[in-house]
Amino acid sequence: MPTNGDGFGLGWYGSQSFPGIFHDTLPAWNDANLQSLSEQIQSKLFFAHVRASTGTSTSRENCHPFRLGRMLFMHNGLIGGYGSIRRDLEQMIPAEIFQERCGTTDSEAFFLLACGNGLEGDVKEALTRTVEQVLEVMARSGTDEPLRMTAAIADGNRIYALRYSSDNQSPTLFYGTGGAIRVNNRRVEFKDGDKAALVLSEPLDAQIDGWIEIPEGHILEARGGIVDVSPFQL
Amino acid sequence: MPTNGDGFGLGWYGSQSFPGIFHDTLPAWNDANLQSLSEQIQSKLFFAHVRASTGTSTSRENCHPFRLGRMLFMHNGLIGGYGSIRRDLEQMIPAEIFQERCGTTDSEAFFLLACGNGLEGDVKEALTRTVEQVLEVMARSGTDEPLRMTAAIADGNRIYALRYSSDNQSPTLFYGTGGAIRVNNRRVEFKDGDKAALVLSEPLDAQIDGWIEIPEGHILEARGGIVDVSPFQL
Amino acid sequence: MPTNGDGFGLGWYGSQSFPGIFHDTLPAWNDANLQSLSEQIQSKLFFAHVRASTGTSTSRENCHPFRLGRMLFMHNGLIGGYGSIRRDLEQMIPAEIFQERCGTTDSEAFFLLACGNGLEGDVKEALTRTVEQVLEVMARSGTDEPLRMTAAIADGNRIYALRYSSDNQSPTLFYGTGGAIRVNNRRVEFKDGDKAALVLSEPLDAQIDGWIEIPEGHILEARGGIVDVSPFQL
Amino acid sequence: MPTNGDGFGLGWYGSQSFPGIFHDTLPAWNDANLQSLSEQIQSKLFFAHVRASTGTSTSRENCHPFRLGRMLFMHNGLIGGYGSIRRDLEQMIPAEIFQERCGTTDSEAFFLLACGNGLEGDVKEALTRTVEQVLEVMARSGTDEPLRMTAAIADGNRIYALRYSSDNQSPTLFYGTGGAIRVNNRRVEFKDGDKAALVLSEPLDAQIDGWIEIPEGHILEARGGIVDVSPFQL
Repeated sequence: MPTNGDGFGLGWYGSQSFPGIFHDTLPAWNDANLQSLSEQIQSKLFFAHVRASTGTSTSRENCHPFRLGRMLFMHNGLIGGYGSIRRDLEQMIPAEIFQERCGTTDSEAFFLLACGNGLEGDVKEALTRTVEQVLEVMARSGTDEPLRMTAAIADGNRIYALRYSSDNQSPTLFYGTGGAIRVNNRRVEFKDGDKAALVLSEPLDAQIDGWIEIPEGHILEARGGIVDVSPFQL
Repeated sequence: MPTNGDGFGLGWYGSQSFPGIFHDTLPAWNDANLQSLSEQIQSKLFFAHVRASTGTSTSRENCHPFRLGRMLFMHNGLIGGYGSIRRDLEQMIPAEIFQERCGTTDSEAFFLLACGNGLEGDVKEALTRTVEQVLEVMARSGTDEPLRMTAAIADGNRIYALRYSSDNQSPTLFYGTGGAIRVNNRRVEFKDGDKAALVLSEPLDAQIDGWIEIPEGHILEARGGIVDVSPFQL
Repeated sequence: MPTNGDGFGLGWYGSQSFPGIFHDTLPAWNDANLQSLSEQIQSKLFFAHVRASTGTSTSRENCHPFRLGRMLFMHNGLIGGYGSIRRDLEQMIPAEIFQERCGTTDSEAFFLLACGNGLEGDVKEALTRTVEQVLEVMARSGTDEPLRMTAAIADGNRIYALRYSSDNQSPTLFYGTGGAIRVNNRRVEFKDGDKAALVLSEPLDAQIDGWIEIPEGHILEARGGIVDVSPFQL
Repeated sequence: MPTNGDGFGLGWYGSQSFPGIFHDTLPAWNDANLQSLSEQIQSKLFFAHVRASTGTSTSRENCHPFRLGRMLFMHNGLIGGYGSIRRDLEQMIPAEIFQERCGTTDSEAFFLLACGNGLEGDVKEALTRTVEQVLEVMARSGTDEPLRMTAAIADGNRIYALRYSSDNQSPTLFYGTGGAIRVNNRRVEFKDGDKAALVLSEPLDAQIDGWIEIPEGHILEARGGIVDVSPFQL
């Protein structure tokens, strides 16, 4: 299992119409700024990501989550053969959105493509079209590497989380819900109710019945603690 | 004039009893995290500092403001002959407080000394005693370099700003007050009233009558926009 | 005048067929690694660059000099309207070379384009073709910003330095030659002879007759201390 | 097992009488500068270190190896109860040497203490005295944490490596020797002979007979490939 020490990031919705972002290249476990921000910032919806690079460099610009307008995006996985199709993917991003391209990752390219496909409106539709586009470019290039998209998207009110891969080997995806969720002594406590949801790549603790796995080829939509999981079909 | 490109820092009071801090070693003008935090964080009392090192290294630990408990501290100036008296100064910091020593600067040493002298209680008294202590150690060492303390202290409710030097050449110190203060098109606007104060090492714009200089050997105390300036005497 | 505090870089030819590179995002004046490397590394041909960004972010990937194979490249100036033509420029970089694109700057884009135009062979010809290409894309885009290329290129044996701009306002370019060149007490000493050349954006000291300015629309070629300056014509 | 992702460092002897050093806070596996320097720098004696912090912060100043004059030092392990005895240890460092204190680690404190005890002359004697001093201060403080010193020292010609702990649980220490040593396809190749030695905290590959473990309470001295291991006694 790789060590996720190639930078990290936070995205959160606060007092603005657009989310805040914070990225750094140190391992998250080392960053005193991260600790201080975590103590002070309150948010009803936030993303946190620790990165294990699949090839592109460790810079702040390559750290997740990515932001455009009120949208946040983060990603576990990869676009197979990315090195040789990067430019083709970039070419499909609408010109105005391409100007927001800050880094060089496959993840940011996917996000900007999805924004061009209307991510701020119909998230599921935009993801479907983007996955199709990317698969098409990959097919043309003849790569035999897979597309793996375990990804999370937020618009300030809702969280979407996709688990899809072309080889049925997506990184995992889990969630838990409750009236409130807090961490106490390294154990996650879920109160009864449906006010809060936590969506994660891996469970935070070893509770068997607290965490629900999202199967391959499905997409989650959460609003507060109300979660809906449905098939993701191309 | 030196370029203040040797790191920067923020300290702010938010939802906790203790302030948040954020330090980085890039020049402030370059830091995308700083921009995002500035857009999102709201605070009734905050400190911001850009550093021009007087000798110690550029690390996050050496960036101002420094924090202990609910206190914040930042400093323009220097302790003359610091290299040779550092250890003597450190020796005078109470053991428990010395454990909070993270960096190697003269500024942090002064702050921790002042904390040992009761900074969280009577700020002026603690500053007076600390300046006296430092001057005494400097005198013993025979340095002919000056002590220059243009410094700001906050406890969450009040801001104190000291302008004192042993050679009458302290870095400058200014303030402005109003019912509200905002920056509009690179010009600072002061509304009538006494709700807000801005304390600065240099004026933010060229308005002659908006900014009041604090003379050498004086100390400012501000609560909201009520400002009191009094002599600082040893 | 901008402060060149947005990162720096070294490139040098040592024991390998390709140059070494070293980039960091701290201001050069702060970097203890830079000092140590400068003390230890010996090289017959090296580049050093301090960056003042014209818009793209401060990351190591955006620091000059850039490297491809045995070539080094660094740049003062800008490609006007870059934000809106970045992708068109990238599109013209040959696919294999595009895979070496690490950052997002106009400077790196120009370099990779020039590599695609045969920079490793006929440097002047490649630069001419690349400038023409870029001007053409700029013209199509309708930008009224200029192209300014004060740039240096090395292949391990020779240094080329171009001063060209579409608006006759290129950043400056100077050189000095001698049997040996060394810095003594902040003053540059040139011994008689033609073994060494120093090419610079600005003179290192105030000597009137030590530094020769390269005029607009000219290109320098240096091999050891033998320098040839000729017009650069499209 | 901890991940050694809290910064790294290189120290090497080149063309100067004193070694070069290079430190950074990114994980070593991510650092493009490290790769370029490794390709270019040639040295007959070098140190490399990856850090897993035992408490002090991740800054360049806290990265190993440490340097003073022609000496290099690096360390696996810890000084038990360091937080509460740091200042007592610092107090014992001779004043002139204390001015070289850049960071806040126990490791650097031990090194500077050892320099004060004559490390540049009789290495073994200086280490013995320093271990005794530190144990004494620890005893006075009443800490029940151990002292663990798996450490390496170089003077430009010789490497010394100590494995000592107060609780018989030192981090491991290994070496291998040969006429030449090179890494080929992730396997270390030792040619016959005694020109080269590699001293390591853990074996680089799984060869059973290539690596010799240094037992607890011993110290290694290597000159080229001639290695002597002897008991380290207080």
